[in-house]
Amino acid sequence: MAQRIVVIGGGAAGIGAAGAAKGTDPGAEVRVYTEFEDVGYSPCGIPYVHGKEIPDFERLFLATKQTYEDAGIDIRYSTAVTAVDAAAKTVTVAGEGQVRYDKLIVCTGFGYAPAGVPGAGLGGLYFVKNIRRAMEWDTVLDRVKAAVVIEASPLGLEMVTALCHRGIETHLVDPGAWALTAATDPDIAGPVQESWQQMGARLHFNTTLTGFAGDGTVSAVLTSDGEIPCDLAVVCTKKQANTALAAAAGIRTGSAGGVIVDERMATTTPDVWAAGDCVEVPHSVSGIPVQGLSGSHAYAQGKVAGTNAAGGSRSYQPVSVPWGMVAGEWMIGGVSFSETLATALGIPHVVGVAEGISRARYYPGVKKIRVKLLAEPGSLRLIGAQMVGAEGIKERADFLAMAVRTGITARQLATMENVYSPPIGALNEPIALAAQNLLSRIGG
Amino acid sequence: MAQRIVVIGGGAAGIGAAGAAKGTDPGAEVRVYTEFEDVGYSPCGIPYVHGKEIPDFERLFLATKQTYEDAGIDIRYSTAVTAVDAAAKTVTVAGEGQVRYDKLIVCTGFGYAPAGVPGAGLGGLYFVKNIRRAMEWDTVLDRVKAAVVIEASPLGLEMVTALCHRGIETHLVDPGAWALTAATDPDIAGPVQESWQQMGARLHFNTTLTGFAGDGTVSAVLTSDGEIPCDLAVVCTKKQANTALAAAAGIRTGSAGGVIVDERMATTTPDVWAAGDCVEVPHSVSGIPVQGLSGSHAYAQGKVAGTNAAGGSRSYQPVSVPWGMVAGEWMIGGVSFSETLATALGIPHVVGVAEGISRARYYPGVKKIRVKLLAEPGSLRLIGAQMVGAEGIKERADFLAMAVRTGITARQLATMENVYSPPIGALNEPIALAAQNLLSRIGG
Repeated sequence: MAQRIVVIGGGAAGIGAAGAAKGTDPGAEVRVYTEFEDVGYSPCGIPYVHGKEIPDFERLFLATKQTYEDAGIDIRYSTAVTAVDAAAKTVTVAGEGQVRYDKLIVCTGFGYAPAGVPGAGLGGLYFVKNIRRAMEWDTVLDRVKAAVVIEASPLGLEMVTALCHRGIETHLVDPGAWALTAATDPDIAGPVQESWQQMGARLHFNTTLTGFAGDGTVSAVLTSDGEIPCDLAVVCTKKQANTALAAAAGIRTGSAGGVIVDERMATTTPDVWAAGDCVEVPHSVSGIPVQGLSGSHAYAQGKVAGTNAAGGSRSYQPVSVPWGMVAGEWMIGGVSFSETLATALGIPHVVGVAEGISRARYYPGVKKIRVKLLAEPGSLRLIGAQMVGAEGIKERADFLAMAVRTGITARQLATMENVYSPPIGALNEPIALAAQNLLSRIGG
Repeated sequence: MAQRIVVIGGGAAGIGAAGAAKGTDPGAEVRVYTEFEDVGYSPCGIPYVHGKEIPDFERLFLATKQTYEDAGIDIRYSTAVTAVDAAAKTVTVAGEGQVRYDKLIVCTGFGYAPAGVPGAGLGGLYFVKNIRRAMEWDTVLDRVKAAVVIEASPLGLEMVTALCHRGIETHLVDPGAWALTAATDPDIAGPVQESWQQMGARLHFNTTLTGFAGDGTVSAVLTSDGEIPCDLAVVCTKKQANTALAAAAGIRTGSAGGVIVDERMATTTPDVWAAGDCVEVPHSVSGIPVQGLSGSHAYAQGKVAGTNAAGGSRSYQPVSVPWGMVAGEWMIGGVSFSETLATALGIPHVVGVAEGISRARYYPGVKKIRVKLLAEPGSLRLIGAQMVGAEGIKERADFLAMAVRTGITARQLATMENVYSPPIGALNEPIALAAQNLLSRIGG
């Protein structure tokens, strides 16, 4: 008899899991429950439609409902799963009652951390996530004169940039001393902040959110540094794992707040897998569990979970977490630890930093790139990197993530070969310059 | 007493060597002899001035003569070294006679392989190399209606693209079946060739040069496939090591035609180092000596040679040879072996290939990237790569060169993490897709 594989959640992890399960066991019945009206779109594109870089929301749909039907994946839209009974191997589904599963894959995603201040129930607070809500909010943005972005998280950085592009008076409120303090040092965030200011943004760092004020709808954001009148607040707080359903079923969660999974993405409960923003996975350098990664991580984890749930065999590696984005007029990116974070965690490190260029210095369009590398003292294995530049940041972050994972050293990076071709690469690769600087600082 | 370090040649290797020698031993007398009027400019930029991407030749100068004087480097311009006496430790210099050295660094560069056909002494044959000659030829290009590029070498690809941009009727003659057969496979060169045709270029592959015809100045290129009338021929034959001076002094040369050096860039002759296009160095995968690399390689080798000659200690690694360039409307690049070259050399390999994209598929400016990977059977260590795309080629080639050097496998690349951010990176990294394809082909 065909096994029934039930997936809870229709985001990148859930869709990846369903596709991999069907691919591994084409005879399986693969069923996806999602609370939402849609699957198969890219929520990551939403800030860029708001910013008018992408002309419409329809482009964010990557697959039609028919695509999944044709693939033999049964997606139940707008259908909430309210409970899991792992002993009976059933889920409770609104409108369907008890539904049996042979294998269950939990892909319940994330929610934004509660602001935890008065007025959090007001209208005019926008949480960027669902595409249909985004379409509605986009029409609201046409009327918004002033907006406040709450927290300089990755999404916060994208939204500040988008709202500036949209011509809205944009404020950013963050308790940290600079943007994205969890991943960057001030010298990396600095150029981004300067470009935001040139775009008209007003930056409120070292500033704590204390409340939202308004009569039904937000009319001001209250902070430790005073009141900011606005028509809209975009709440970009930290992503938290949605684990309520799993935890209620006795599926264990860990120190980062996510569902605990092994390298096969199996949970601590038999026949239950999990993937995506609801899980935590170990960091490749520290072994510390981390959570709230990218859509690319969610999709890859989903594929591993779906493959294994259906009877195949794949494993997922500890993560080094390359990251990158456009922020203001710059691209920023990196991998693993910043100097700030490594210091805060007590991780020993040596640092190298250099300013290089993206093309031959005489070639039109050449831009500076600042690269900072962190290595483990002694071994000089790379344990972190950050960059700010205008091209080639994503590809360098991917490279350096593999370097962190495979134990490549600053000594190796200092003598790396590089493409030198005037329109696309400079005589000296900025990564090599930063590694050389690191070696010179330690006298070697 | 201060040691005297003599450098023969003022290109990237010679200037790198002189700077490193002075940096290592500031008390040394460092003297550079060059046959030419200038040093400290980028010959690699010449094709882009011809193509009008760069507005003038002056921009290619990276340092003034004063810069070197200030650095304490004594550069003797337009001064030929005609002999080396390694036993007496002297060089014979035109106009100076016998000049003593303590340490000698040979950076005599390359010449283009002789065309070896009748008419090679005619006017109108342009060898792209010296900036003053390039300035003169650039005024000639204003009057040229039709030009023939001889050989689809890296320089040949740049010159075809430049002459098309310049609005000149451009022909390419090459004995190979496609462009850059030494580094590419036809599926990688194909898009470049299509874009050249759209730019108006006329491609003569599988065509042998048989002569140049004309009355004093070339008026036609003669080939196995007929005569091509033209006003100019750009001779882009293979780069050959200039070793006449070294060989006459008993300094040994090797199988690739370059001066033999060890990992310290020391030649077989005591107190004589060499670097740049005149040397050969081992390939990291095959151990086979290779020669005629990039300006970046020359500069790095020069720094190693100069450091060691002055009494320091640095070593140069076997090369993986990342390469990349703009050709037609595309960027192409790669590292080490193509499928064609590996097959020709009898190097066992397995292949993976994928077409990915450079940004989210809905993001404006997204372009396809084709990636082909070669791995050693069994170990699946990467031994080669090629790419064609429109952004991020240089950075990926640098990454894959480090992968070749450090033994990263297709299995590791298949599970690489990647930055996913709509304006700068797609959900699936094309390198990972190609590695996954490779694994699927071998059933793993």
